[in-house]
Amino acid sequence: MFKLYYAPGTCALASHIALQEAGAAYETERLDFKANQQNSAEYLAINPKGRVPSLVTDRGILTETPAMLAFIAQSFPRAKLAPLDDPYAFAQVQAFNSYLCSTVHVAHAHKGRGYRWATDEASFADMKRMVPKSVGASFALIERDMLRGPWVMGDSYTICDPYLFTVAQWLEGDSVDLSKLPKVMEHRKRMSERPAVRTVMAEELTAA
Amino acid sequence: MFKLYYAPGTCALASHIALQEAGAAYETERLDFKANQQNSAEYLAINPKGRVPSLVTDRGILTETPAMLAFIAQSFPRAKLAPLDDPYAFAQVQAFNSYLCSTVHVAHAHKGRGYRWATDEASFADMKRMVPKSVGASFALIERDMLRGPWVMGDSYTICDPYLFTVAQWLEGDSVDLSKLPKVMEHRKRMSERPAVRTVMAEELTAA
Repeated sequence: MFKLYYAPGTCALASHIALQEAGAAYETERLDFKANQQNSAEYLAINPKGRVPSLVTDRGILTETPAMLAFIAQSFPRAKLAPLDDPYAFAQVQAFNSYLCSTVHVAHAHKGRGYRWATDEASFADMKRMVPKSVGASFALIERDMLRGPWVMGDSYTICDPYLFTVAQWLEGDSVDLSKLPKVMEHRKRMSERPAVRTVMAEELTAA
Repeated sequence: MFKLYYAPGTCALASHIALQEAGAAYETERLDFKANQQNSAEYLAINPKGRVPSLVTDRGILTETPAMLAFIAQSFPRAKLAPLDDPYAFAQVQAFNSYLCSTVHVAHAHKGRGYRWATDEASFADMKRMVPKSVGASFALIERDMLRGPWVMGDSYTICDPYLFTVAQWLEGDSVDLSKLPKVMEHRKRMSERPAVRTVMAEELTAA
């Protein structure tokens, strides 16, 4: 039995969907970011980074979305969530997820988490102004070069798909021009129709 | 035969060392960042992100350090650069590398690449001032919670080690207090004594 710590609207959604798609036995615990619960002593004992997601397993606790997604795929091989027997194809999956984590998510984080990298209000405002452009540019690259369709890696649904779906939830809030991203928007719609995604979204969107 | 595109002083060093440790057949091509060669039309055709590293394989081109490191480990299993048959242990390796990529490297990048996330000179200066603190905090976490010793994952040398060594090259330039990082500094010294690391450093540090 796994336990996933998450907060609604965060990148934890990707792992939540992957657990559901894998048919894993898991429970969830929702953190209240408005109450800064991710920095409580209790949660810092679970994840000293004070972030979500965290996945409690019987071996220990895992963090970092790309690592957790690969772990879920490898732990449930019958769900076929990654090309596990092909190091090159697996690396393509990992490269896509690493880009979402270290470039796209990071660009997005400059909207509301500027205090991680600066101290002045003027800098935060400057960072905020840049987000439509920086997030937009990274999604333009995804639209043009990365998203093969119908799924990220082509015909096979993989752990790239819930992660892209998760990050694409933030597009409107980041004021990115959606009309330039038809493939991304089709992918988001396609994802939202999957039973596993509906189940998870219903849980995450329920009032705490 | 692989071909690695790199520039000295960048995170490409991690993959360079891993290729050498794996005993891979590879050649390298050095990019001149001062001449902005990473944004030349020729290189953008290889990696549209305009970044290093890129790894040309006979199947195609890979990018993103965590993905490349896992690919090298999986392609050369006899080099034992990762716990390939244990999804949980492999996820721990991946989580460490993902943290270096998306948190530590990103914090460091705010020293000289602020234009990725803002436009004003005052913001760049503000970001620069924060780097000793933000990079220092992430290394404090590595020192306290992550680096098991003698190698990152304990007794086994893995793909985490060249990556930590690479990012630790930037500590002095980032004005981080080294006296608070005895384990990290010992690890850096231990790494620098490995034959593969000496070979790679000699190549990267040779004047172009």
